[in-house]
Amino acid sequence: MEKIVAWMSAVGFAFAGSVALAQQKPEDIIKYRQSALFLMGQHFGPLAAMAQGKIPYDKESAARNAAVVEYMSKLPWESFPSGTEQGNNTKAKREIWSNKDDFKAKADKMQAEVGKLAQVARGSDFDALKAQVGEAGKACKACHDEYRNK
Amino acid sequence: MEKIVAWMSAVGFAFAGSVALAQQKPEDIIKYRQSALFLMGQHFGPLAAMAQGKIPYDKESAARNAAVVEYMSKLPWESFPSGTEQGNNTKAKREIWSNKDDFKAKADKMQAEVGKLAQVARGSDFDALKAQVGEAGKACKACHDEYRNK
Repeated sequence: MEKIVAWMSAVGFAFAGSVALAQQKPEDIIKYRQSALFLMGQHFGPLAAMAQGKIPYDKESAARNAAVVEYMSKLPWESFPSGTEQGNNTKAKREIWSNKDDFKAKADKMQAEVGKLAQVARGSDFDALKAQVGEAGKACKACHDEYRNK
Repeated sequence: MEKIVAWMSAVGFAFAGSVALAQQKPEDIIKYRQSALFLMGQHFGPLAAMAQGKIPYDKESAARNAAVVEYMSKLPWESFPSGTEQGNNTKAKREIWSNKDDFKAKADKMQAEVGKLAQVARGSDFDALKAQVGEAGKACKACHDEYRNK
């Protein structure tokens, strides 16, 4: 436990999410971030589909999905400590740990865009929603392009 | 998509969580519930450890973890539609689908206990927290005993 807490400090993130990490095994830490990111993606999917006209715009659905996306966007960032570069079929690239400042900047950017998305989704302006889905998607992609293996 | 929506209706749950499901493949639906339940467990862990005296009681950590547990407790229940009995190494027992009312009752009970847990954890009464961790744990276990394979 102490070892993992030391890893947490080494990463130097502001751990907004939780304190689950202190008891976790590296495998579970990897699974934790995968789970949070997967849930985020699953809830972003319907928003992207609405923005692309693949499913009808539904205000209530958009608002609920965006709220979950925003919630999930806060969870994964404590779960990239040193010592979790490998295991559980992680797609995380080594550059996450060699380029921490940029990784954190991209994570912060994504959280900011997703926060705006949740705000816009509570309204009824579909064009604004479409635009913000685009911004949020770009912020997701920027990190995936750089830091996630295929 | 229409097929999955039909499954949703067939299950007859009140889908409090989200509308992610409409676009999901069965494999992803299974992964969805696994992810939400895994995150819930990871955040319940520190609360159980505090209750058992394995880690020191920390009010802020308890409150944050319990809040995430409560949030996660609302997500999985839309992701047990018919058609997701198999796949992705699911531990779900068939009885979930043959005994839907009892499964739903146990899920509701868990959510109620976990809601109380989040409330208690915002306070400073460690004995009350311990007691409610016990109640929440029992509610989790009741469902696992009946509906989850080892």
